[in-house]
Parts: sequence; C-alpha cells; structure tokens
Amino acid sequence: MGEHELLVSVAFGGICGSDLHYYQHGGFGTVRIKQPMALGHEVSGVVQAMGSKVSGFTKGQRIAISPSRPCGNCRFCQTGMQNHCLNMRFYGSAMPFPHIQGAFSEQLVISASQAHPVADHLSLSEAALAEPLSVGLHAIQRAGGVLGKQVLVTGCGPIGSLLIGGLRRAGAARIVAGDIADLPLQCARQMGADETINLRTQADALDTYKADKGQFDAVFEASGSEPALRAAMDVIAPRGVLVAVGLGGEIALPMNQIVAKEIDLRGTFRFHAEFANAVQFLNSGLIDGKPVITAVLPFERAVEAFALAADKSQSLKVQIAFADTATA
Amino acid sequence: MGEHELLVSVAFGGICGSDLHYYQHGGFGTVRIKQPMALGHEVSGVVQAMGSKVSGFTKGQRIAISPSRPCGNCRFCQTGMQNHCLNMRFYGSAMPFPHIQGAFSEQLVISASQAHPVADHLSLSEAALAEPLSVGLHAIQRAGGVLGKQVLVTGCGPIGSLLIGGLRRAGAARIVAGDIADLPLQCARQMGADETINLRTQADALDTYKADKGQFDAVFEASGSEPALRAAMDVIAPRGVLVAVGLGGEIALPMNQIVAKEIDLRGTFRFHAEFANAVQFLNSGLIDGKPVITAVLPFERAVEAFALAADKSQSLKVQIAFADTATA
Amino acid sequence: MGEHELLVSVAFGGICGSDLHYYQHGGFGTVRIKQPMALGHEVSGVVQAMGSKVSGFTKGQRIAISPSRPCGNCRFCQTGMQNHCLNMRFYGSAMPFPHIQGAFSEQLVISASQAHPVADHLSLSEAALAEPLSVGLHAIQRAGGVLGKQVLVTGCGPIGSLLIGGLRRAGAARIVAGDIADLPLQCARQMGADETINLRTQADALDTYKADKGQFDAVFEASGSEPALRAAMDVIAPRGVLVAVGLGGEIALPMNQIVAKEIDLRGTFRFHAEFANAVQFLNSGLIDGKPVITAVLPFERAVEAFALAADKSQSLKVQIAFADTATA
Amino acid sequence: MGEHELLVSVAFGGICGSDLHYYQHGGFGTVRIKQPMALGHEVSGVVQAMGSKVSGFTKGQRIAISPSRPCGNCRFCQTGMQNHCLNMRFYGSAMPFPHIQGAFSEQLVISASQAHPVADHLSLSEAALAEPLSVGLHAIQRAGGVLGKQVLVTGCGPIGSLLIGGLRRAGAARIVAGDIADLPLQCARQMGADETINLRTQADALDTYKADKGQFDAVFEASGSEPALRAAMDVIAPRGVLVAVGLGGEIALPMNQIVAKEIDLRGTFRFHAEFANAVQFLNSGLIDGKPVITAVLPFERAVEAFALAADKSQSLKVQIAFADTATA
Repeated sequence: MGEHELLVSVAFGGICGSDLHYYQHGGFGTVRIKQPMALGHEVSGVVQAMGSKVSGFTKGQRIAISPSRPCGNCRFCQTGMQNHCLNMRFYGSAMPFPHIQGAFSEQLVISASQAHPVADHLSLSEAALAEPLSVGLHAIQRAGGVLGKQVLVTGCGPIGSLLIGGLRRAGAARIVAGDIADLPLQCARQMGADETINLRTQADALDTYKADKGQFDAVFEASGSEPALRAAMDVIAPRGVLVAVGLGGEIALPMNQIVAKEIDLRGTFRFHAEFANAVQFLNSGLIDGKPVITAVLPFERAVEAFALAADKSQSLKVQIAFADTATA
Repeated sequence: MGEHELLVSVAFGGICGSDLHYYQHGGFGTVRIKQPMALGHEVSGVVQAMGSKVSGFTKGQRIAISPSRPCGNCRFCQTGMQNHCLNMRFYGSAMPFPHIQGAFSEQLVISASQAHPVADHLSLSEAALAEPLSVGLHAIQRAGGVLGKQVLVTGCGPIGSLLIGGLRRAGAARIVAGDIADLPLQCARQMGADETINLRTQADALDTYKADKGQFDAVFEASGSEPALRAAMDVIAPRGVLVAVGLGGEIALPMNQIVAKEIDLRGTFRFHAEFANAVQFLNSGLIDGKPVITAVLPFERAVEAFALAADKSQSLKVQIAFADTATA
Repeated sequence: MGEHELLVSVAFGGICGSDLHYYQHGGFGTVRIKQPMALGHEVSGVVQAMGSKVSGFTKGQRIAISPSRPCGNCRFCQTGMQNHCLNMRFYGSAMPFPHIQGAFSEQLVISASQAHPVADHLSLSEAALAEPLSVGLHAIQRAGGVLGKQVLVTGCGPIGSLLIGGLRRAGAARIVAGDIADLPLQCARQMGADETINLRTQADALDTYKADKGQFDAVFEASGSEPALRAAMDVIAPRGVLVAVGLGGEIALPMNQIVAKEIDLRGTFRFHAEFANAVQFLNSGLIDGKPVITAVLPFERAVEAFALAADKSQSLKVQIAFADTATA
Repeated sequence: MGEHELLVSVAFGGICGSDLHYYQHGGFGTVRIKQPMALGHEVSGVVQAMGSKVSGFTKGQRIAISPSRPCGNCRFCQTGMQNHCLNMRFYGSAMPFPHIQGAFSEQLVISASQAHPVADHLSLSEAALAEPLSVGLHAIQRAGGVLGKQVLVTGCGPIGSLLIGGLRRAGAARIVAGDIADLPLQCARQMGADETINLRTQADALDTYKADKGQFDAVFEASGSEPALRAAMDVIAPRGVLVAVGLGGEIALPMNQIVAKEIDLRGTFRFHAEFANAVQFLNSGLIDGKPVITAVLPFERAVEAFALAADKSQSLKVQIAFADTATA
C-alpha cells in the first residue's frame, strides 16, 4: 500500500451492462477479453488501513469508490477531459492491454483520491449507485444542462432510470420516458418521469410530440437501438440535443433530418468530476436511487447474480454483497 | 409593390447544388417538385424602385439579396432560430406546397429587409456569393467558433471552399482540406487551406491525424459521402465537433465511436443573421470569394450553365448573368 | 376586449421591492414616477370571459399572469431576448413614458398569451409567486446553469429565497445563503439552503471559502449591497460567475480582483420564457414557494400591506387578496 | 540543465506595462517587490543546448518562449485553467514570495515545453510579440469569440493594438478603436480597426452607438480607466460582453446599468494554450505585429529603453535586444 493509498474491504458491487457483455460475449464492439480479468466498477466499501500520507480518512470510514483513474498528465487530463485520458486505468476494462482488473473482490488497494465518504444514513448498497448515477450526470452535462427543458429518455434500464433521477434534480421541466418493457418504465416513474410510454405497445403515443418539427429540447437515447434513435429524431425540436448514452453498434441515420433540423447528436462516455456530485446527491437525499436496485445477492451466488442481471423482465440493477459485515 | 418593398432588376444568380438536384432529379431526399417552380436563391441586383415607406435605398443601389424570408412570429422566429421558421418562404424551395418561387428572373419585388448594399469596389457577381458564404458562416457558428482550432474540411465544392474562406477569417489556426478531385482542392488552397489532400489518391495522408485519438478540433463534412464522414470520425479529437453541411441520405454511423470519443455531430441548415455578415466580409475584402467563381454565362445560355455546373471536373460556382447592364 | 384577449378577475398580487420603491420614494435609480401609475406585476386570477379567437381557456380557469408584454418585432424580440424589448410594456413600470399601468386592480384585460393555467391543488396565492420565481430562474439561466456546483446566495429576501428554491431544483450541489437578518435566513433554509450565515453576526463564517483563491462556482448577489458584493469576490473561484440580481446603485469594485481571478460579473433582468417554467415547477410541486409568503391582506388593507412589506424584520413576501372568492 | 530542459540565449525582450510598474513604482495594486527580481516575460531566443531527453529541437533553433509555467497538478491545472495555477511560476512576477525571476537575461534554462519554433521568415523581434498577442487572444476566448460581431476596443497600447489584430483575424465584423492619444490610434488602424476615435478630442463620436440600448456586441477595455469603462456601458448592447483587460484599481460601476442591460463584465488574465496559437498566427503571417514595435534598443541601453517605453507619446512596444547575433 502506497503512502497515498487506502486498503479497502469491498461492500457492494453493481453489475453493469458492460460486465454482462464481457461475461456473456467476451467483449463488445471491437473490444475483446484477451486475458483473465476481474469484472466490476460500481463498488462501495469500508476503509481498513491508510497509507502514511493519507489524511481525512479513518479506519471504518464508509466510502463510494470511483473506478476512474486517469494519468493526470496527458493532454486530455490537462484540459479537464479526464474521461478521455490516453492512459486511463478504469476498473474492469479490456480496452487497454494488459487489461485493467476490475473491483469485484473482497479487498482493494485504492488511491485516496478515489474514495468519497458516504453519509451515515445512506446504505453502502445505495452508495454503489454513485458510479452509474455519475454516467447519467455526465450525460446531462454533455447536453449542456436541462433546466426548464422538455426531455425524452429512451431506454429505462439502470442507467436510463438513474439518469431520469438526475434530470429531475437538474431541473428538467417535463420528462417523458420510453422503453419496450414495463418494469423499467415503472422504475422510470418512481425516479421522476412525468409520463411513460411503452414503445412496443403504445407506438403512437410519441406522435403528438412531432408537432411543429418536434417538441423535445433534449433526448437521451440509452437503449442503443436503431428504432429508438430514429424515433427520437422525429420528436426532437430543431437544434435539440440528442445524447447517445451507452455503447451501440452501426446505426443507419437519416442525415437529411440531422441537417435540416440542425440536430446535435452527442456521444457521452463515462464521467470524471461527476462522481463527487453523484455521492453528494445520494448523501444529501437529493437523488434517491433505491428504486433502481432490484436484487442484492451474496458473492457466493455471483453466477446467479449475473443470470438475474441478464433477465430484463425482472431486473434493473443487481448487486453483489462482498462482506457479511457490510451495512446494507 | 408594397410600401416596404423594392423593385429590383436581378444582376447575377449562382447555381446551387439544390438547384441542380431539382433540375436533374426533380428534388432531393423526400422533397419533390409538384408544380412549376423557378429556381435560384443566390442573387444580386440593382434597385429600380422603392415602396413609399422604404428609406435608405435609392434607384441604382447595387444590392445582395437574402433569399431568407421567415414569418417573424412563430416560436422559432421569436427565439432567433429564423432558419427553422414554421412558415419560411425561402426562394426556390419545393419543401412547402405551394412551392416558393425562386429568384432566377429579370425582376423581383423584395422586402427592403432582404436588401444589403454592396460596396462600390465589389462586383455584383461576387456579391451573389453572399448566400453560399452565409451557409459557411452559419456552419462555423454551429461549430461554436474555430478561433485557434485545427480544422478539417471534407468536400471543397463552392460551399466547402467558401467555408474555408470563412474559417480562415474566423481564426482557425490550421485548415486541412480534402476532396476526391483536384480542381476543388486547388480552389480550397486559394481560399486559405494550409494543406490539401486528395482523398482518392492520397488516402493515407489523413493517417497521421489519427494519433492520440484524433487531432482535429472541428471537422466540416461538406461532401455528403459516407466514406468522408467515417474518415472524419477517425481523425476528430474527443469532444470534437463534426458539422454536417448540406443534405445527405441515409448513412450508417459507428455509434461506438461517437459515444467513446464523445463526438458532437451537428447538422447545419441555411443561415439567417449571417447573410449580413457575409456581405460585410465581401464588402470589406476580408473574405475574397473570386476563386470560387469558375464561369458566368448570360441567361440566354442558362441550359448550358446548368450542364456546366453539373460538371465537377471543370466547375465550382457557375453563375447566370441576368442583365446586360450589370457590372461584372 | 380583443379577439385574442381574456377578461380576468385578479385574485392575489404580491408586493415587490420595486413596488415599494415607487410607493416610498417615487422611483429608483434614475427612474421617476411622472404620472399616476397603478403598481403591481405579481398577480394570479380567474378567467371571466374570452375573446372570440381564444382557445384553450374557459370561464373559471385559474391562471398565473405574466406581466411581460414585449412587442415581438424589435431586434431583441427577434433574437429571443424579449426582456430587452425596445417597446416593452411590463406591468407597473415608470421606465417608459407614458408609464405602463400595473396589475393591482380587480379586473384586467390581458392577452391570452400572458395566461398560464394553474393546477387544481395549487393555491392562487402561491401561483402569484410565479413572477418572482421567474426572476430567480432567469438568474440561474444567466449563470449558465448550476448543476453540481457550489453556490452562494447573498440576500435572502423573497427573490433570494425563491432563487434558492430554483437552485435546489436546478441541481446545485451545495447552497450557502447569507443575509444580515435571521428571518430571511430561516426562509432560505426552508427553501433548500444547506448552510446559512448571518453576515452581520458571523462575519468570519465565509473565511473558510477563501481557500485556494475561492470555493464558489457561482454567486448570486441579491442584496444590492457593496459589502456583500465585495465579500463575494473573495470567496468566488477563478472564472466563477457572479450574478447581480436586482437593481443597485453605484458600487466601487476591485477591478484587480475581477481581472486576476477572471470573475464573470453578470447582470440579470426580469425574465421571459422562464415564466412558463416557474408555473410548471409550482404546478408540479417541484418547487414549493409557500415559505416565502409571510402575509396575505385583503385589498381594503393595501396601505397596511405596503407598510408590512417594508418591515424586513417580519416580512418576506406580502400579498394582497383582490377577491373574496379567490381560493387561497 | 535537466533532461527535459533547454539552454537558450535570449534574443529580444519586450517591456510590458507590468515591468514598467515594477520599475517605476515597485509594484501595482497590492503586489510589492520585496526582494531583487529580474523583470521581463516577453522573450524570444535561440537554442544553445538540449537536455538528454529533449527531442524536436536542435542547436540554433529560433524560438518564442512562453513565460507560463503552471504546476500541472492543482485543481486549476487539471481543469484546463492553467492561468489560475495555485503554484504558477510566471516569469518576472512578485505575486508569490520568493518572487519568480524574470527573463531579461542573456541566457535562460527553460523547459522544452516552453519553447515554440519560429518560422524562418519571422524575425525574433516579432516572435517576442507572441506573449502580448497571447494576452489578446485569451481575451477574445474569454469573450466567447467575436465572429461576425461589432466590437469596441478602448485603450490601444501594445495589448489593445495586438488584440485588434487578433479580433480582425478572429472574424470581428467591425472594429471601433478608442484611445486618448493619436499614436496608439494610428497603430490600431494599422492592426485592422475600421474606425478610430480619439476619446479626448472626439468625445461625441461614440454617441451614435448608444442607439437602441447600445450597438456593440463586445467591448474590450484595455485602458484601465474609469471613464472608458463607463462609456463602454452606454454603448454596449444588452447581454453584451465587456472584457476587462489588464489590471486596474478600484472603479465605481453603475450596477443599475449592469443589471438592466444584463451586461457581462468579464476579467481576463494572462493566457495558456493561446501562446501556441499566437506563434502559429505570427509564423503564418495571419497576424502581423510589426506596427506595434516602435523601438528596439541593445541591452546596454536598457535604462533608456524603460524611459522610452514609459513615454506614451512616442512608444508602443519597446524591446531590448540581448544578443548581437540575433536576427532582427
């Protein structure tokens, strides 16, 4: 353990869509696993020991752990774009080789700068939502803010639902949520959506938003599906911002529409500074992530947890508990 | 002629790509000509008579004429987005029905607000470049400005080349221009490009710009071709802005790349306030559009002019002269 | 009543600081009352009759009334800056001459575009807060948004306190509120402030925020006092935005500090589009303005209401009820 | 000399206003010289030797030298705000203690990252303008860009005049320059101003710009004088950006005007990334700084050079030549 590091026992770890892709398919897009790699990057824990130059932490301190470990020196780090760091060591990623090991383990040695104290009244299970919530908050920053705006979210899995919690807190005036299943839509409503639309069974419900070239100031596309992206282009207002959240494959886009409506299609990728905000919002209760957690299993049942996480009919966020002593 | 209108004799009219599409194919994308429609929206002229309440114009005043005629009252006009006006009457457009007649005629009655005085030393032929230059200036505004930035332009026809003139004036630090033909690249260089690349014969020349996730802060894609758009995604920097200029069809896009690099793909469509700027830049000589004009034919040879404009091997901008008396 | 107008019975009207200035001093700054002028611009009401071309309203509809009546045609209206309209007719303003009459009356004829429906469960007293809340929301827009930011508000009267409600909803991560009296600070806390500082009795409490050149990303100065503005400059971070809310007089500013810290001092004035957002937030309960209302008096006691409003030791927002039948 | 460093012989050094303040008054504002300190931060030179790990430089390479040496690790460096670095070691500054020694010397050891190659055809005298030009370019970035805007510059000394060169290159549509002396106004015109106003003898010339609440989209105040700042507030348009360039003292400001016009008063301080742009613009000839240099004296006549620099009636930028062999 280095002088600026902490030894941490991991409490809870959420299973992310990318973890599932690695587990089920050995990768996603052009990213392939080429050597053994531990998964996991959504973790909370308890400090067990501190390096000699660490201040502000004590043994027993409950923390949320940021998986983002940029180098600090490259041109992106030096301009506040740490999520594009040329030497990023993000937990559980097969993008670089050797791969970066993940955080699904009983103990971790982390940099003190990754540790964010958790408020007494917040469970460590909820604290492990800081990471996916950060993804949502960064997406909102990428959109240039949403205060007073009419917003559509397509895809209401864990990321989409936490994003909705973020949008509500960020001052969106009206939030419409779309998905092809009812469980995520129910969660979306609990997280703050004003209206939910089952895009499979209520396909026409979006039509009213096509009026006058489109009604949504911003759209967050978190499903990765081509029909959702194209539907979004019909209902987004001219100069609206369409944020693509989460990885997708090749998608055919109507460039005529992008040009004629001056649509602004922006990718969003991970986060950096937003992690601290996510913890702050969870600590203060300004965002309540509990509706997103559908199951917590002990790590001995990790295989079962992955199977459960893959079953979208009954799961949003599934977490693994790594310690008996963790305060749920 | 209304009290706020002017009677104008048209001097020069440039043939635009959309004019060619109407002429050759009867439309583009989903837009079809359904009734006789005069073409043309890039025109200059001379004031012949003024409505009773017009001030600031005299007979004989040489002017550039904006083809943009928004309603002024819709929600887009009231928020400074006149190019998205719900009731736009843009010259020579088959988007609405009845179609909006174009400006290729000997005389026009226009609103005084469409008329922009031309400086003595500027030819009316050059003044007719104000419209396509406006398209370029609006594209630069859509990019959020380019001062000090490294910029790539793909597609160096009249719009791309005038855009390069605008980029140079707007303070781009370095401009690389790509096209698949030599004539437009030669024009691009005259308009201010620092480096030109024939994307057909020098395909590897862009490779050096892939370093460190991509080197261009902004890319302007003015060719409408899928290979150009995809090549742009490899060389644009994370959080770079990729402006899609001009109408295209369906294009398959690598969403993984848009997300992972947080690319910002923005459409740009026409212009509004930029028309006055374009005239100002041409009047003051701060932008010189002459290299873009490759031929001027009298209107009796209009059919020949359209054929010439369609021949990319020898033409950039082809203009039609509508009056003997016009000062070239 | 014109065909696009509504006849409205006024329900409640809030007394604003500018109303008080007119009442007590005959004006503020260089603005002087030169002819009889009704006061009031924070009003709600009930529709009594509709012009022939009005749709979407029925007799008995409860509404919040926007006092903003821009011309729609000037260069500011045509670029989305209606609050700077060259021909603005804002209720109860002596800026233009003849003055624009205010809304403190039993009946008003208004444009249908000024009327915003009020939700059933929202009292018309609270609905009359839409106007001062709009001022706060516009100030937040002027700051460029506050999502995830550390924010200081100095001056927690009705505007400052409603602004705090807006900041909390707009996603400010942490809100510190300062005032020289305890009543407004108590209200600030109810509206969402995380920390309150009595700038008279706890002057040193801000010192901790001077660390590392300043800790606040944004400051909203709503007291109009020079000490508050100067104190803000010591605790705002480099490139922080300091929004000046509400009219002040001549204030000596340390330009060295503005330059060396690259402080961004921005004025904010009234609002326009934000009125609809304010009503939406009140209707949905996303912002609760009730803590700001300290007294409601019937219009027969209007003189007493003005005296009460002027007494900062016991009043924040004082409202006048104009109708017996109004639902409080 | 460290492995990433260069040994450089200094060629030319420009005398800045802050150098003059130190020389004449021992400081400015609250900054005081407390120990011997060499002056100077606007220097060019020639590489004499390279550290073992330096690549891309050879002996004899002519360079412009950035005086900006941020730490790279503090919260400002990590968010692209290096000019606010908590541990900045900017040449010739008495802000920190011990003071940071300046660059007026025959030899310097610099970090290779400070060195920017100078094009063959650019004199090292002109290359020494990269620093004050960077100040101007940063001011333009602070204004959010000026493409197509109407701009006023008050104070046309070396900074103001180089700023005008930057504004012209950055696409300002029209530039009005004001000063109280004729020499700087003459320089302003050479650098690209469209109109010059002697604010002492033609005080009324600005009046026409007061129309419709003000006509300038942006104002750059580089004189540090209260009358200039106040005059700017009368002619700036609502929501215009007023950039305060260069250090000033206490100035009384009309807050009513800042609020009612929503003026955006922004400080600008030094630069960072803009240094590379400045060298690029000088190298390519896109900005020509020669009109600003009014005298170059050998370092044996340094005392005379300072006296000359202080005489505004005959001097703009005065430079000191530190080597016989320097190519002028």
